[in-house]
Amino acid sequence: MRYHRIPDETVRRLPIYLRGLMFSADQGNEHISSRSLAEFVGVHAWLIRKDFSYFGDFGTPGVGYNIQRLARQIKKILRLDSVPRAALVGVGDLGSALLAYPGFATYGLDIVAAFDTSPKKIGKVVNGVKIEPVVDLAALKQRDITLAIVAVPRAAAQPTVDRLVEVGVKGILNFAPCKVQAPKRVKVITLDIAMELARLPYYIPTGQTDKGKGAQQ
Amino acid sequence: MRYHRIPDETVRRLPIYLRGLMFSADQGNEHISSRSLAEFVGVHAWLIRKDFSYFGDFGTPGVGYNIQRLARQIKKILRLDSVPRAALVGVGDLGSALLAYPGFATYGLDIVAAFDTSPKKIGKVVNGVKIEPVVDLAALKQRDITLAIVAVPRAAAQPTVDRLVEVGVKGILNFAPCKVQAPKRVKVITLDIAMELARLPYYIPTGQTDKGKGAQQ
Repeated sequence: MRYHRIPDETVRRLPIYLRGLMFSADQGNEHISSRSLAEFVGVHAWLIRKDFSYFGDFGTPGVGYNIQRLARQIKKILRLDSVPRAALVGVGDLGSALLAYPGFATYGLDIVAAFDTSPKKIGKVVNGVKIEPVVDLAALKQRDITLAIVAVPRAAAQPTVDRLVEVGVKGILNFAPCKVQAPKRVKVITLDIAMELARLPYYIPTGQTDKGKGAQQ
Repeated sequence: MRYHRIPDETVRRLPIYLRGLMFSADQGNEHISSRSLAEFVGVHAWLIRKDFSYFGDFGTPGVGYNIQRLARQIKKILRLDSVPRAALVGVGDLGSALLAYPGFATYGLDIVAAFDTSPKKIGKVVNGVKIEPVVDLAALKQRDITLAIVAVPRAAAQPTVDRLVEVGVKGILNFAPCKVQAPKRVKVITLDIAMELARLPYYIPTGQTDKGKGAQQ
């Protein structure tokens, strides 16, 4: 079953809710009110109720949402129950950190394959995953892997994406700091880590006011 | 000089433009048209022109924008010319990868200090930065460091942010997969890497149509 007509903005918030639900479950809770969830995830309670109404879970008045049921439902909508296996291309510093990153498990995601061009890296095992040569990307389809993470240098990003599209990958999380092109049928999300840091200074007040010299602005 | 009334959405795009300009300069270009920049960064040319009009650079008709001048201007607006130094807290797998990450240089950003609680890590040098004990965070203000990157486990995230606020940090990029609280005067951007991957499966079509078995949807 596929859910339709869920706005992109809601899809963007569903993983935030899921993260909050998993955390609440870890704390031993069985139910959660939209208000508690709102406090935990930093989204207004009314918006949470609106988002959940898209898939018909209105909770139980006075009790709240059943955490496990709601988490299963969100995973199903996000298709995390059926498409959780990802391949990593590029096992440098960042790629290695991603292989070791514990955060993917929250969403039921699993990096099950890793690829690199360096003969020094091929054959090594990082966090339980054996590094394969990139020529073996050809077998991804047979292995039923349709998600890929790209952590290669900028110059290699577009050729890597082209190759992933060729071998049937449908969703790509790109960490290379550049825009990459892919056919419309393939969803690409680019995450430029440095760019997020580059937005911060704008919001920092000027002057020496914090050094105890009094307001100078 | 501080620029005012630039919408958040424009601020969000400025680093994208800056990245495009730096890349174009690397290729030996001196000028760039809004159309070329648009193609490169994936933002409509009219939106680029609108964004640039906030700070009065309209380019030269038939020649385009002077790349170096525009890059300097964007860096000034983003305050990357005056607030480029950041501290890293948490030198695990992800923290180490961030220390080695070449992408920050594009924006003139520099991680100049790193902190950890582990006695095994303190004193080690990673990518030219010596790891210090977290008690030494107290001196950040004297060292004129007002940006921080948090790459600690989830349970340590809020106490770390509290401490950073105490020692005068004004902007925090948080990689811990949870919401953290800070006073309004401190800007916090949370980047949950796994959450970005978790949004991808939603956009992947169901069924076996790609395995050569014909359309089944």
